[in-house]
Amino acid sequence: MLSFYSVIPAGGSGKRLWPLSRMSFPKFLHPFGEDGSTLLQATINRLSGLSPLARTYVVTSGSLAPIIARELPELPAENLLVEPSPMDSAPAICLAAAVIAERDPDAVMGSFAADHVIRNTASFQASVETAARGALDGYLMTVGVTPTRPETGYGYMRCGEPLYDGSIMSVEEFKEKPELSLAESYFESKRYLWNASFFVWRVRTFLDEVQQRQPEMYEALRRIAAAWDTDSRDAVLGELWSALPKIAIEYLIMEPASRDGRVATVPGDFGWSDIGDYQALGELYSGDEHGNVVVGVGSGHPRVLTRDSKRLVLVPGGKRLIAAAGVSDLVIVDTDDVLLVCDRSRVQEVKELVAHFESSGATEYI
Amino acid sequence: MLSFYSVIPAGGSGKRLWPLSRMSFPKFLHPFGEDGSTLLQATINRLSGLSPLARTYVVTSGSLAPIIARELPELPAENLLVEPSPMDSAPAICLAAAVIAERDPDAVMGSFAADHVIRNTASFQASVETAARGALDGYLMTVGVTPTRPETGYGYMRCGEPLYDGSIMSVEEFKEKPELSLAESYFESKRYLWNASFFVWRVRTFLDEVQQRQPEMYEALRRIAAAWDTDSRDAVLGELWSALPKIAIEYLIMEPASRDGRVATVPGDFGWSDIGDYQALGELYSGDEHGNVVVGVGSGHPRVLTRDSKRLVLVPGGKRLIAAAGVSDLVIVDTDDVLLVCDRSRVQEVKELVAHFESSGATEYI
Repeated sequence: MLSFYSVIPAGGSGKRLWPLSRMSFPKFLHPFGEDGSTLLQATINRLSGLSPLARTYVVTSGSLAPIIARELPELPAENLLVEPSPMDSAPAICLAAAVIAERDPDAVMGSFAADHVIRNTASFQASVETAARGALDGYLMTVGVTPTRPETGYGYMRCGEPLYDGSIMSVEEFKEKPELSLAESYFESKRYLWNASFFVWRVRTFLDEVQQRQPEMYEALRRIAAAWDTDSRDAVLGELWSALPKIAIEYLIMEPASRDGRVATVPGDFGWSDIGDYQALGELYSGDEHGNVVVGVGSGHPRVLTRDSKRLVLVPGGKRLIAAAGVSDLVIVDTDDVLLVCDRSRVQEVKELVAHFESSGATEYI
Repeated sequence: MLSFYSVIPAGGSGKRLWPLSRMSFPKFLHPFGEDGSTLLQATINRLSGLSPLARTYVVTSGSLAPIIARELPELPAENLLVEPSPMDSAPAICLAAAVIAERDPDAVMGSFAADHVIRNTASFQASVETAARGALDGYLMTVGVTPTRPETGYGYMRCGEPLYDGSIMSVEEFKEKPELSLAESYFESKRYLWNASFFVWRVRTFLDEVQQRQPEMYEALRRIAAAWDTDSRDAVLGELWSALPKIAIEYLIMEPASRDGRVATVPGDFGWSDIGDYQALGELYSGDEHGNVVVGVGSGHPRVLTRDSKRLVLVPGGKRLIAAAGVSDLVIVDTDDVLLVCDRSRVQEVKELVAHFESSGATEYI
């Protein structure tokens, strides 16, 4: 396969998995991958059939960089791109594209989240390879996920014309997380895919798009990339980084580009989960006969005792026994400094607890 | 007041308050007393108007004796009676009676649990003083509690004839914890009192009763008491203690004595709670506007965050934040090594969890 680069933005904390996922120890460092590997390591493994580590990049923050460097000892140090400050997905992905373009102007890159689960690696790889074909033809490609339910927790892409043999579809529009009735109409129409934020493009194509839509940002990126492998990297970053637009890549580039017919997608079906909340986390593991799931180890954890309890999602911290009696449909998360008990139907609200700590200044809990 | 002695059996662990109450740190060592004192200290304080520390005795196990000795530094060392092995309430109370009788044959003693809460100390003292009058007349007295509801969690005493001016009633029968329908009939009849295991008697009267009903036990107690303040205490205990009947005092003495007209009671009304379970523990503290109670500190604990949650009983261990979202009617107990989540209607079953650990040999959790 062509000169394919994998980019893994690894900065987000996963607020709906608080208190497990923290600023200092986000979701992708937890061992929810196959065989108990971290999600980040599992992501690297999954991409190894597409790009060797020499062409695999991780974009992260200064505080997480040392942890990731040790978690991935084989990753070339120059492929670990450290953002001076977290700036949402657009700056992170643009930085990677610009640095890779500087090092290999003909590169095709794919950007893949560090903290998702994909059950069928072969099918995923095939989808990415198909996307790369569209990328070589000049499309900003995405790899979408064929919906299996009217989910309100994901963004969507509306597909238009089939391209090529039909394995690639044009994308007419990006849609934000919908209300349930809208999600149901999306699901029934079969014209929508879940947006997993998997992107594949020629770096040159992508940077041209940035140049056209955000010329100031493009100029800053060009200067940053030119300085990256020189002694002036820090000085140039210090001058330019914090002025970049702090925004998601969908808003900045993909959504406007889709309206101009520049975006296409490969409908994927490879057992995807973004493990966005405790409900999704629980679904990764098989439960006992009462539907009680112990995250991290499956059922039968020696440090869990349930009595007349059903459909619990238990996340033991490893140091304490969790005992549950006469309760059902709860998420119970034990960590060193926080204990969370939440109704399973309310797992989306966990991020509100984080917001509370942010607004109250109790940053030690974030 | 006469030569009144207070005896506090302090051995039980309070299994329905597991994992807070443990073999090595039972309920009476927890700070649920007034002003944050331990229940044991609060019990001592409450009895100080009846007996000075020189006439206050604590009966406990070898493992708890050092903790209690430090908890009650003013208690005379010779008043801390250490059982060689835990043997239920009959041997503990008999031991205290026998040792006190050896030291003061005319003593009147009262036996009071180490881990109950009493709101109205003056009323309690008055009830005990009334009971002492019956004791001086040769009755085996109890101080009962006038029921406020058809409780199934307590034993009962059926009252017979009023004695004296009616402030003392004869006790016809002791009853075990009843089913709900029976508890309702007890409650409606107004002839029943809750048995709080508060006993008041002349030690001579009580030991005569033991001699008559359990002559072998009496002989053992007599030898133990005679040896107690000598160098042969340990040898005599080693010979005799473990053969004593391991049984509650109600079964061994009070119930048969009541059938012979030897038992009487003072109906008490002094804001009593045995804090037998988490439901009762929660009732000690005022909740927030949603009925959420934080045990130990009242509502507004800085390490508790509730969101859209109602009627929780939260027991923070002090080291972790407890966050609850979208849940109601739960008991959440955080300790160093165990986390318990239990429905409020199922708090009686907590002791079954302890039984599980006993039967499975996981004694570290008991």
